[in-house]
Amino acid sequence: MSTEEPPSQRAARGFRTGWLEAFSDGVFAIAITLLVLDIGVSSDAGRDLLHAIGSLWPSYLAYVASFSTIGAAWLAHNAITEYLERADAAFVRLNLLLLLFVSFLPFPTRLVAEYIHQDQAERVAVTFCGIILLLSSTMLLVLWRYAVRARLVRPDLADEEIELLTQRLTPGLSAYLVLIVSGLFLPVIAVIGFLGIALYYIIPFRRLSASILPRRRRRDRVGPQGRG
Amino acid sequence: MSTEEPPSQRAARGFRTGWLEAFSDGVFAIAITLLVLDIGVSSDAGRDLLHAIGSLWPSYLAYVASFSTIGAAWLAHNAITEYLERADAAFVRLNLLLLLFVSFLPFPTRLVAEYIHQDQAERVAVTFCGIILLLSSTMLLVLWRYAVRARLVRPDLADEEIELLTQRLTPGLSAYLVLIVSGLFLPVIAVIGFLGIALYYIIPFRRLSASILPRRRRRDRVGPQGRG
Amino acid sequence: MSTEEPPSQRAARGFRTGWLEAFSDGVFAIAITLLVLDIGVSSDAGRDLLHAIGSLWPSYLAYVASFSTIGAAWLAHNAITEYLERADAAFVRLNLLLLLFVSFLPFPTRLVAEYIHQDQAERVAVTFCGIILLLSSTMLLVLWRYAVRARLVRPDLADEEIELLTQRLTPGLSAYLVLIVSGLFLPVIAVIGFLGIALYYIIPFRRLSASILPRRRRRDRVGPQGRG
Amino acid sequence: MSTEEPPSQRAARGFRTGWLEAFSDGVFAIAITLLVLDIGVSSDAGRDLLHAIGSLWPSYLAYVASFSTIGAAWLAHNAITEYLERADAAFVRLNLLLLLFVSFLPFPTRLVAEYIHQDQAERVAVTFCGIILLLSSTMLLVLWRYAVRARLVRPDLADEEIELLTQRLTPGLSAYLVLIVSGLFLPVIAVIGFLGIALYYIIPFRRLSASILPRRRRRDRVGPQGRG
Repeated sequence: MSTEEPPSQRAARGFRTGWLEAFSDGVFAIAITLLVLDIGVSSDAGRDLLHAIGSLWPSYLAYVASFSTIGAAWLAHNAITEYLERADAAFVRLNLLLLLFVSFLPFPTRLVAEYIHQDQAERVAVTFCGIILLLSSTMLLVLWRYAVRARLVRPDLADEEIELLTQRLTPGLSAYLVLIVSGLFLPVIAVIGFLGIALYYIIPFRRLSASILPRRRRRDRVGPQGRG
Repeated sequence: MSTEEPPSQRAARGFRTGWLEAFSDGVFAIAITLLVLDIGVSSDAGRDLLHAIGSLWPSYLAYVASFSTIGAAWLAHNAITEYLERADAAFVRLNLLLLLFVSFLPFPTRLVAEYIHQDQAERVAVTFCGIILLLSSTMLLVLWRYAVRARLVRPDLADEEIELLTQRLTPGLSAYLVLIVSGLFLPVIAVIGFLGIALYYIIPFRRLSASILPRRRRRDRVGPQGRG
Repeated sequence: MSTEEPPSQRAARGFRTGWLEAFSDGVFAIAITLLVLDIGVSSDAGRDLLHAIGSLWPSYLAYVASFSTIGAAWLAHNAITEYLERADAAFVRLNLLLLLFVSFLPFPTRLVAEYIHQDQAERVAVTFCGIILLLSSTMLLVLWRYAVRARLVRPDLADEEIELLTQRLTPGLSAYLVLIVSGLFLPVIAVIGFLGIALYYIIPFRRLSASILPRRRRRDRVGPQGRG
Repeated sequence: MSTEEPPSQRAARGFRTGWLEAFSDGVFAIAITLLVLDIGVSSDAGRDLLHAIGSLWPSYLAYVASFSTIGAAWLAHNAITEYLERADAAFVRLNLLLLLFVSFLPFPTRLVAEYIHQDQAERVAVTFCGIILLLSSTMLLVLWRYAVRARLVRPDLADEEIELLTQRLTPGLSAYLVLIVSGLFLPVIAVIGFLGIALYYIIPFRRLSASILPRRRRRDRVGPQGRG
């Protein structure tokens, strides 16, 4: 009736893609929590457990890197679905393909955690992990570009807002390509790089949201003291 | 008041089967994410990890086939619950039986992944897997036919819409039967066939939704550029 | 305003215990899906996989019994929260205790699956499993009785409806006690008995809901042809 | 219209942080249910299963302590999000950090369960577990303090209510510090202490809620007979 739509209408609009978000969020939450199962000490670790726990640092690094990556993908996926007016069948199918890569991530994470000490194997594991990360990241961009092209986004979304999210999702791809090649020579550096990309996605989302989200639901708005 | 019901009423209708959908979606999401735990390299893989990762192709094939099958079952289950006006106690019980088979799927998937290299065992594993897939698929059809017979579907649903979903759910059954028999002779072909059935279910749902869903919630409507 | 409350009010009432139901349903869904991880063939099963799959019947029996038990507990828990007007802090605590037992169930299930062939061990495993089932079942009854005593149930709920749910939840306890003792002598019979109790809970819930639920949300109402 | 806001508005307000709560609740529910996978008897336990089950008491203790800790963290997290008017990007990031520690907990729990019998290793395992518990607990306090500082809390929240939750979340930190040191000398006592802290958080939340929550949603209000 007025420019301020009634809350119940906003709620109803939220249901249009709600079933898709619920399933996707479930897969993200499960994949991120399953990562811990990949960490384990060998059965004779009891003699010097302190050393055994310490020598697991590649596992912790791989855990933190994959946790951050899935966390970043969840935030990006959330930003995409937040902008959606509706989903179509192709979007749902592309979304399943994204989830296929995301829920596959615990496997290369386990390989990295296990083989980072072994000279030849670590290069293979890190490269393999990087390829899956690249595929997940690519699918996020494909999903978003498809949503824009198929006019699934909310009509009240300004072009610069659309452009801003596209710009946010793009640079990760070339960074992953560089790291996949580096992984052949400097595997540990590449894993730290994977973590870096994830943190890049997690952290400045704040500035993105500060500029965009206040207009609607304001769920990510940064308050006056929010810079802490 | 008018022919267009207020949004809050639509939301309320959604809650009638909401508790059932939430639990079912949770089981689908967990089962699909647990599949990755079935992939693993042997402990001496470190010497030639590239070869080890490559030789796991049956695991990847089984992973993708089962992921697609659970994804397709989730989409079909979603289409069914979307058409429901309400659920009755028998529907809930049949739904539990469907979830029993769906959450059992990681076990035959693991068998296929593990034994596809071994001549005799692969036939057994693939046939076993096919039987569980057939049972899941049958339960989806049973669930839908029961919902129609017990008048649980929304009264405004046209007969041809009901018929269309029934037709969509039926052909998979005979395809699975054919593949179970083929699995005894050509196991790898049968697994590719399982993947094919799942993709058949996933992909043309779009055309189905294009014709049906626009009338309500329009959550799968294909936009003008949506053919990409 | 009238005797028929507006839908949005019904939705709002649902949110009062919604956060508790969402977490509980999540735990039920995860526990029921994790059960499949307890099934596994030994690593030398490849030579005669058909025999290996067949010899796993105790695993399938334990899987179906535990799946049905968690499914029945989920239905009963759902019936309880459905009747709630609100939850208090003690209810939330008792609910956590119930979830502690429910999410512990995969462990005794694994023991039953593994040791049912071994004469002495099977008695121990089945008795242990029965005790956890008894504790879960007891907690459901305690939860419901507490909700009634602390006046957490909806005020419009008739006394006979409260009594009916109490009667439904009670007989399982003595049945479990009998089966725990039988488990010492006839372990396989006891496991079949566990399955029987679960099915007893799952199946006649229908008649219960037929008589109660139509008044509100009608989410379990049995339609005219619903007896199939 | 009146001072009593319409239900649909209340529902809409709940959606502002709903996506964050749904994901977090999912991670809490999965982490709490995965704990059971850490319990296992050795493969030769069949000869004397009763003894084997009994000798697993450290596993049960670690299971109950970690289950209670995650349960307490979920309740505290819930109390925090309940008080939120909205979330900002930094809050979401801090929340991911909390989830990182919470979903890491199954690993130290497994170590405690496995090594509590071995003199030197048990000290390491318990101290390691205590550090993760301390980090989780610290993050909950950081999350809450940040929410207050960044003015994310509901404006109608009284200062004493804010102070009360801060006071509730603080003492755990020094208790964990004391127990981490004790763990070096008396590991079993420290684990019992971890359980004690968790129960302290779980149990008197009731009094807290009794005094605060009645004003809004009243979801934890203690009824007249609620002291049982």
